[in-house]
Amino acid sequence: MSDAAHTLILLRHGQSQWNEKNLFTGWVDVDLTEKGREEARRSGEMLREEGLLPDVLHTSRLRRAITTAHLALDAADRHWIDVKRDWRLNERHYGALQGKDKAQIRDEYGEEQFMAWRRGYDTPPPALEADSEWSQAQDPRYAELGSEVPATECLKDVVERLVPYWDEAIAADLRAGRTVLVTAHGNSLRALVKTLDGISDEDIAGVNIPTGIPLVYELDADLRPLTPGGRYLDPEAAAGAIAEVANQGAKH
Amino acid sequence: MSDAAHTLILLRHGQSQWNEKNLFTGWVDVDLTEKGREEARRSGEMLREEGLLPDVLHTSRLRRAITTAHLALDAADRHWIDVKRDWRLNERHYGALQGKDKAQIRDEYGEEQFMAWRRGYDTPPPALEADSEWSQAQDPRYAELGSEVPATECLKDVVERLVPYWDEAIAADLRAGRTVLVTAHGNSLRALVKTLDGISDEDIAGVNIPTGIPLVYELDADLRPLTPGGRYLDPEAAAGAIAEVANQGAKH
Repeated sequence: MSDAAHTLILLRHGQSQWNEKNLFTGWVDVDLTEKGREEARRSGEMLREEGLLPDVLHTSRLRRAITTAHLALDAADRHWIDVKRDWRLNERHYGALQGKDKAQIRDEYGEEQFMAWRRGYDTPPPALEADSEWSQAQDPRYAELGSEVPATECLKDVVERLVPYWDEAIAADLRAGRTVLVTAHGNSLRALVKTLDGISDEDIAGVNIPTGIPLVYELDADLRPLTPGGRYLDPEAAAGAIAEVANQGAKH
Repeated sequence: MSDAAHTLILLRHGQSQWNEKNLFTGWVDVDLTEKGREEARRSGEMLREEGLLPDVLHTSRLRRAITTAHLALDAADRHWIDVKRDWRLNERHYGALQGKDKAQIRDEYGEEQFMAWRRGYDTPPPALEADSEWSQAQDPRYAELGSEVPATECLKDVVERLVPYWDEAIAADLRAGRTVLVTAHGNSLRALVKTLDGISDEDIAGVNIPTGIPLVYELDADLRPLTPGGRYLDPEAAAGAIAEVANQGAKH
């Protein structure tokens, strides 16, 4: 740790109502479950116990990441730090799959198509119609995007929107000497980790980030990770959660 | 309303643990009570019902204002707006009175001194020692202030720190066409209202702002209030709360 020039903390939001119901969520703005709130508070306690004190928060524009940050920072006694929100930290837009049951989609389209949509690097699901109840085309929070509000995204699209935000906003705060907390989503954090660790388009399919466990990257002066993959503050719980996701993948 | 060029919404945090215990709080970072959380959520519902939709939030660096904003904006479905936090929106620093029981201070120092400290425009309480458990001299959130962290303040001091923040930050957002929500404290909001309405140093003593009821100012192009004093979204509850405070003052 002594060689670290910069500290970056990644935190995936706790369980959401649609995680629990096994629905594709994407940009639909669902709330945390009580279990998700508890995960968020616990992650803040871990930060406090480890003396990892963020100076600035970056979140997506989605409630589950915003509330996770609020609860975690409150528990860490860092509720008062500066905040930056940006749509480029949002979850991947799941297109026409948003609001759909995952098991039902797998049954309907088969395992191969299902996995291509979930883990293929450049396979976006069909676009979501703008008049769908699950569309964000008219959502005022994305007004700055005009007609560029996504109707579907693959992980490659997420990487392409996230990298400029990394450069302009997150890396800028790190270079200014601030410890940065990013609270975001499974796929926006996978995109970030892919960039940080230089993971290939193929290998990123096998990387999963568990909910509610802070993932700490110590970075050198050039913002390169001292330890590839960083370290989870609760490595045992993280390993268990990652194995569980891997098993689910095998069973599907 | 049709002549309003700009909309500013002021919200005093809900009941805190030390409001409930009748202690002087100032910069001590106490939490909301469950009643305070309920007030915050209700204020957000009022904003939503009235179609008053903030584009940007300004808060103090204190938990009770930050959590009030989080709960209110979540209830108003505006949790995703941009956030700016600044110590200049903090409650007045109550000096050596911080952490002390209000009734006990009144008994010890007498009614006149008690009211001078509470409502006198330029009468700060004695300074708080830097080694007091209630001092913020070493609090990392005020590191930017160095040795200028207040040890006591009167309302005049609050006005003097708040006016530059009004000009640089809040008025700038209003001029950019944004509806601004400010969640802050009894005395920082009194200082703001004094400035907006041009209230004299004497008359501000009689102005009280109730907790948890949004106070809306419609402003002209020069940021002058269309209606002096603004309007409370729940005028009956506001009048009741203001009368209660006035009665308490009379009884003391």
